[in-house]
Amino acid sequence: MNLKHFSTMNFFDQLTGRVTESNSLLCVGLDPRGTTVHELYAECVRTIDATHEFAAAFKPNSAFFEAFGPDGMRALQEVIAHVPNGIPVILDAKRGDIGDTSVAYAKAAFDVYKAHAITVNPYLGKDSVAPFMARADRGAFVLCKTSNPGSDEFQNLEVRDQISDVRFQTSERKLFEQVAYAAQTWNEKNNVGLVVGATYPESMKLIRAAAPDLWFLVPGIGAQGGDLEATLRAGLRPDGLGLLINASRSIVRAKDPAAEARTLRDAINQERR
Amino acid sequence: MNLKHFSTMNFFDQLTGRVTESNSLLCVGLDPRGTTVHELYAECVRTIDATHEFAAAFKPNSAFFEAFGPDGMRALQEVIAHVPNGIPVILDAKRGDIGDTSVAYAKAAFDVYKAHAITVNPYLGKDSVAPFMARADRGAFVLCKTSNPGSDEFQNLEVRDQISDVRFQTSERKLFEQVAYAAQTWNEKNNVGLVVGATYPESMKLIRAAAPDLWFLVPGIGAQGGDLEATLRAGLRPDGLGLLINASRSIVRAKDPAAEARTLRDAINQERR
Repeated sequence: MNLKHFSTMNFFDQLTGRVTESNSLLCVGLDPRGTTVHELYAECVRTIDATHEFAAAFKPNSAFFEAFGPDGMRALQEVIAHVPNGIPVILDAKRGDIGDTSVAYAKAAFDVYKAHAITVNPYLGKDSVAPFMARADRGAFVLCKTSNPGSDEFQNLEVRDQISDVRFQTSERKLFEQVAYAAQTWNEKNNVGLVVGATYPESMKLIRAAAPDLWFLVPGIGAQGGDLEATLRAGLRPDGLGLLINASRSIVRAKDPAAEARTLRDAINQERR
Repeated sequence: MNLKHFSTMNFFDQLTGRVTESNSLLCVGLDPRGTTVHELYAECVRTIDATHEFAAAFKPNSAFFEAFGPDGMRALQEVIAHVPNGIPVILDAKRGDIGDTSVAYAKAAFDVYKAHAITVNPYLGKDSVAPFMARADRGAFVLCKTSNPGSDEFQNLEVRDQISDVRFQTSERKLFEQVAYAAQTWNEKNNVGLVVGATYPESMKLIRAAAPDLWFLVPGIGAQGGDLEATLRAGLRPDGLGLLINASRSIVRAKDPAAEARTLRDAINQERR
């Protein structure tokens, strides 16, 4: 991969290039639990240094930096800068607001913190996501079906809508399917993905049917109890791509994070064959 | 109001106390458009100084500070500190994530930036909002029906659910009504409100029916074209409270922001009688 032009390439071309180079669908989550800003930074740097060989992407979680105020945000900036060139950084920030405000959030994520992609919330509709999708070289992963126990409350509601598409046999579907379908139609620049938790493989099947082309960022493996094999079976595209399996705590807390990352990468690849 | 204990009182008691004291349902939005951090800070301080007499609350928009990186977040901290004691500050940040992560966001908003309330996104369900509702002295305004044109896309979908309640005559309702109903059931500590845009007064009527007790934070008056009279008719509770009418640009860009804030406060009160 020509690193010189890395960050101006189409986002999913960047990601696919890195997936090939690292032979990995593993995304290493950076959810640092330090009690000082220095610990926060040191923990992330240790994780990046130990695992980057096996990482298709890194995913820092904005909240854990925000909880330390402006100094925490400085650490976030430095952590992202520490990721080796050529590895995409997905800022997990779950933003979403009306027009101008989303423009400011996109500026923060992409220009100030230099992330290559961000997670976004669809509740406000396409116009709220548009500023994050405006640049083909930067990606937006739209929350679809999240990994938490309460995700059923609204995401699993049956909704009625007039979509007539071969992918849906009736006019009723779950809200998360509707979001998946919408995101697929938004993906005009090849820079829109979905967040789909590993804790609900049956839902992932429905989402893959509604959005056959999209990349899914998949939290919930490891500490949250998601089933890796079922997840890969439900979500992999026929080309063996389309899933980015995130692990955070299980890697960071391992005795040997490098070995843990390699083992998980290899376990994922086992199922791709 | 006893300011000494202001910030440990129940959130809506704080707000109601301030509404009485200022005879105002006006929330002054701080959406600074400066091109440097200094301009950002100065614009907010000018607005606070000019309008605090007429403000029931201030609502800084996190995005416009985040777009300036760590220094912008320092400015946000200083802007919130500049708001006179006794006036609640609602941080407009639209956060929402799974358990631990929402805990970190709540810590940032309430303990680091010292906001008294925050706007939150319901898409991930009750467990994602719980950390923001955990403290009775801090409030959470749940996005329900937002003011943007694209809010129809998901918020207005017809959903089916088994709620049987006199407030709903059928098993079908719009997603935003379902959210309103849920938020009312979450409000065990009297610290949960809703965000309801002024641009859809007919929707506000439905939301008031689904959540008769809750406070609504109402953006969309002024620059976005919401109708003040229709909004107040649709949303005021019988006690003449329950609406916090936000204005940002129309006040900040006025020749005389103080006069503009007073005029808007008085226009709101006219309709309360």
